[in-house]
Amino acid sequence: MTSFEDCTIRVRYADTDQMGVVYYSNYLVYFEVGRTEFCRRRGIAYAEIERQSESYLIVAEARCRYRRPLRYDQEVVVRTFLQEFRKRTMTFAYQLIDPDTGTLFAEGETVHVVTDRQGRPKSFPEEYRRKLLGPEGETTKEESSEVRMD
Amino acid sequence: MTSFEDCTIRVRYADTDQMGVVYYSNYLVYFEVGRTEFCRRRGIAYAEIERQSESYLIVAEARCRYRRPLRYDQEVVVRTFLQEFRKRTMTFAYQLIDPDTGTLFAEGETVHVVTDRQGRPKSFPEEYRRKLLGPEGETTKEESSEVRMD
Amino acid sequence: MTSFEDCTIRVRYADTDQMGVVYYSNYLVYFEVGRTEFCRRRGIAYAEIERQSESYLIVAEARCRYRRPLRYDQEVVVRTFLQEFRKRTMTFAYQLIDPDTGTLFAEGETVHVVTDRQGRPKSFPEEYRRKLLGPEGETTKEESSEVRMD
Amino acid sequence: MTSFEDCTIRVRYADTDQMGVVYYSNYLVYFEVGRTEFCRRRGIAYAEIERQSESYLIVAEARCRYRRPLRYDQEVVVRTFLQEFRKRTMTFAYQLIDPDTGTLFAEGETVHVVTDRQGRPKSFPEEYRRKLLGPEGETTKEESSEVRMD
Repeated sequence: MTSFEDCTIRVRYADTDQMGVVYYSNYLVYFEVGRTEFCRRRGIAYAEIERQSESYLIVAEARCRYRRPLRYDQEVVVRTFLQEFRKRTMTFAYQLIDPDTGTLFAEGETVHVVTDRQGRPKSFPEEYRRKLLGPEGETTKEESSEVRMD
Repeated sequence: MTSFEDCTIRVRYADTDQMGVVYYSNYLVYFEVGRTEFCRRRGIAYAEIERQSESYLIVAEARCRYRRPLRYDQEVVVRTFLQEFRKRTMTFAYQLIDPDTGTLFAEGETVHVVTDRQGRPKSFPEEYRRKLLGPEGETTKEESSEVRMD
Repeated sequence: MTSFEDCTIRVRYADTDQMGVVYYSNYLVYFEVGRTEFCRRRGIAYAEIERQSESYLIVAEARCRYRRPLRYDQEVVVRTFLQEFRKRTMTFAYQLIDPDTGTLFAEGETVHVVTDRQGRPKSFPEEYRRKLLGPEGETTKEESSEVRMD
Repeated sequence: MTSFEDCTIRVRYADTDQMGVVYYSNYLVYFEVGRTEFCRRRGIAYAEIERQSESYLIVAEARCRYRRPLRYDQEVVVRTFLQEFRKRTMTFAYQLIDPDTGTLFAEGETVHVVTDRQGRPKSFPEEYRRKLLGPEGETTKEESSEVRMD
């Protein structure tokens, strides 16, 4: 039932600001890394979606709640959930976690709309949909398969 | 009653991604530019707050809703509102606007907590508070002077 | 004979790192802003070159020499020179200057190769060439119109 | 005699620009990741140098030669050499390599000056020096232990 994927990144010097912590917009970059890895673990190279199916996951909304400062050289687990999957939108949720202590550095969500190259909304290709949802998605009856973050 | 400040930026090539639009985390950078300018127009150099009063505006939360794609070389008005001002937190709201058409590219909010260098919460220095709120803030009786975004 | 163009930027909080100064790769972003402005002042929107003539200025080399640290909120003049202009390559040179004191923060160069969308070298469109070189370029006889940086 | 260290990164969506390739300043970020890993493999956490010895490696110069475009999701080996080590300066050299084909994407160098917190030049702490140079550095007699890049 654990419908998430983990990957680990390390904070770069470039990511910090003069307060000595990671600059706030860079958390969204970490989310993107988690999103890409989530897709890859489910058998999808995100680049391939764009190329093969002419489908783009436009970001419609992004949110981040900052819990504890992240510092240079810190290892961080990016835990990515496919929180909601509708016909033309999907919501990913993220947690940035200290791999040693389990401390939560930050959490957030991104909402995506599926479009074609010209930005017109379209349905997400079925083959990718099945892969993304993973094994437990197969049995889901509803249009929206929600994954609780607790 | 329009308690906002405008400044104009221009989208850099560095800000775009391979979709040909501004990468989603960079909107938060634009918000920061707006926040800094808001402070400056009210007579406060943000760098000075950090240096002189040992007060830091830690970001506790950030949100952005993406309305229309932003492209390279586009001029953008960053309209910044001080949406809420409490003793130890403040919320800025932002609109990214096309200066020619008035089209809204994106909007969002950031919530900040005032801390000392060690990250302990503290009250925002009174002198800066008065400046930030501006003329119409003087007459405000309540602790929270809210500015509606419509 | 001063064949350069100036534009002014302001250091963003996002540009700093935990040493309290501008992170070293961001100087190249400032160079790009200068390059774009140089083109605009000569009557060329760089975006238009890409769109209309299917010509891309691929960066072949970049160099930066860091003289003095740049800090948050500092205003910086980006002075851009078209240092050399050959058939299929051009070299821009840059100086980052304190507008108040004239102090040099950094200087550098970027070498560009003109290619088509597929990355194949091509000649730079004549109409843009004439605009870029500006008035003093008209009288230049040699293939390479060099501008000395002192 | 192979005095280099390798680490692998993956190109993020955030790193690309509208030309569909990695934006040119981000190569310097990859160099920094290689530099940090080089130090770590030699038993030094770079963050620790700053904290414990009050020594900073200020960048004095950076160069990059771009050979082949780098694209989203590409895995890249960052090969880092300590090219030259003098009393108060050191030069790192870098190669960005395709792990599958050995193709060189880019190469470059960064020159660093050792300073204290206030930016005054100082000698690099001996204990770190020995670690950085590694086993083959022990037998080097000259002040400058140069590593050829071929």
